Amino acid sequence: MATDEFSLIEEFFGQPSVSRSNENTLLSIGDDAAVVQVPQHHLMVQTIDTLVAGRHFPEQTDARLIAYKSLAVNVSDLAAMAASPAFFLLSLTLPEVNEDFLKGFSEGLFEAVDEFGIELIGGDTCRGPMSISIQASGFVPKDQYVTRSGARPGDHIFVSGQLGSAALGLAALQGQISLPEKIREHCLQALNKPQPRVDMIPLLRQFASAAIDVSDGLVGDLQHILKQSGVGALVQESNLPVVDFIRENELYPLALSGGDDYQLLFTVGERELTGFLAQVNDYSLDATEVGVIKESGYHLQSVTEGKVDLSRRRGFDHFVKS
Amino acid sequence: MATDEFSLIEEFFGQPSVSRSNENTLLSIGDDAAVVQVPQHHLMVQTIDTLVAGRHFPEQTDARLIAYKSLAVNVSDLAAMAASPAFFLLSLTLPEVNEDFLKGFSEGLFEAVDEFGIELIGGDTCRGPMSISIQASGFVPKDQYVTRSGARPGDHIFVSGQLGSAALGLAALQGQISLPEKIREHCLQALNKPQPRVDMIPLLRQFASAAIDVSDGLVGDLQHILKQSGVGALVQESNLPVVDFIRENELYPLALSGGDDYQLLFTVGERELTGFLAQVNDYSLDATEVGVIKESGYHLQSVTEGKVDLSRRRGFDHFVKS
Repeated sequence: MATDEFSLIEEFFGQPSVSRSNENTLLSIGDDAAVVQVPQHHLMVQTIDTLVAGRHFPEQTDARLIAYKSLAVNVSDLAAMAASPAFFLLSLTLPEVNEDFLKGFSEGLFEAVDEFGIELIGGDTCRGPMSISIQASGFVPKDQYVTRSGARPGDHIFVSGQLGSAALGLAALQGQISLPEKIREHCLQALNKPQPRVDMIPLLRQFASAAIDVSDGLVGDLQHILKQSGVGALVQESNLPVVDFIRENELYPLALSGGDDYQLLFTVGERELTGFLAQVNDYSLDATEVGVIKESGYHLQSVTEGKVDLSRRRGFDHFVKS
Repeated sequence: MATDEFSLIEEFFGQPSVSRSNENTLLSIGDDAAVVQVPQHHLMVQTIDTLVAGRHFPEQTDARLIAYKSLAVNVSDLAAMAASPAFFLLSLTLPEVNEDFLKGFSEGLFEAVDEFGIELIGGDTCRGPMSISIQASGFVPKDQYVTRSGARPGDHIFVSGQLGSAALGLAALQGQISLPEKIREHCLQALNKPQPRVDMIPLLRQFASAAIDVSDGLVGDLQHILKQSGVGALVQESNLPVVDFIRENELYPLALSGGDDYQLLFTVGERELTGFLAQVNDYSLDATEVGVIKESGYHLQSVTEGKVDLSRRRGFDHFVKS
């Protein structure tokens, strides 16, 4: 990484507490690169995501929230592969060195670091229009990672947590909708501080045939599983896990293609179902069955419109919006 | 990574040739994350670097050169740790989907991929002001990585290749200096297509006590080694490996703090010197001795000014320019 730049903000990022250190990190921040080891019988999972001001978050967003979310979306990708978060590199591009911003950003970042159990091992800073690139790495035991390509006809489709809450929060923030205060708070929390589902990792490893994180909306993200697995699906709109406000006002599109959910969508085979449900119950996890994998076709059993063909719908995409 | 975005430019990045595949890549582009393994008895080295349009390269730079350089600067960081390039993730932020740009960019990227022996395993695209973040990973046998902290008094300071050529090229490009055509070509090549010194990796592993890549100028980058090793140095200006034009016109500051060299600066202990020089000779490598590590102090034996104190000089920095 480019030498002195990072030491310039060493004050904010350079002194992770001992509790954040990782026995697999041999050399952290401060050299040309970090040096890490992968535990025996494990693989490394790697992802990168960039958040751009004005696109992924409004320019004036609280620096704490920007940092938190930047790390959360990457950890969500690791969780979708059933990989435990291990470490990350941060590339921070800022128009200027602003101490208040850096203080808030580092606070939000290290809050997320503590929550997700991941370590900052290096990075880079540049001057330019604000954007944050984070590359996160995780570990998974050999043969236990979960891809998008393993779904088979008859598999049950599950989703963790709630869908559409972040999109509802965004709609409220943009003044498109008025929400009761309590729901508004709940939805803004979902939008601003997504909780990557690291708690689901053990279940994915044991029971899931395919998985993806729902970042661009269920319809588009499930389609990736269908394409890569060579199968179809039927989704039950009435089963979607949503806040009552969405159900009561039939705002299902927010849950189908709203984006920013950072929940996990995954499939479980018939033979694994009983064991899976037992563990969901034992650990009080929130996983809801929303449909079934079919040989072909991609349909939604809609609450109001009957059977809808989803095969030509797209999820939210930063270049092409559906 | 964010799902469909990358598949949108799959055409340009999604089909690496078989020759680029890596036996350690278990899952590449197209899932939530890539899955890789680290060879037995090896460690993984990780770096990230972002290049911003208008800062690291002029807005109108040929897309081929932008891509090539973006990868080269990351591979240079790996080489400075004595790690062999293995794979990388690309996060590409563009104001718009421009097919010509993407075509050129992917050509330049895969040219570099082939030259450096590294594989693209995943990425992310966003819309926004143009910037390129690359996170590269490499392998190094356990206990053979080289840090900035191992230099000891009496160690000989070497630098690979030439210093100052890229800075001279930039000065020519900006019309600050007029160069003979042949030198101009040479210097523009150094500026636009830096060659990360992967050829030096075996020697670093065997002989170097400390190493860094010279991206921000020798004075600043050597200072990182001195600080982290707790030592001083004396640099001989007359020994700096520069093009004749720099020597004849006493443009040494370009070689001392010009930046963008992407050469390796490293130290070799007295006991390793004979073995090191023999191998430099055997493999016809270009490594030049430019100084010696001292107990303390940081000085330059200048051609024109005698002994100059470097301890308060800074290398080029994107926030604070010396």
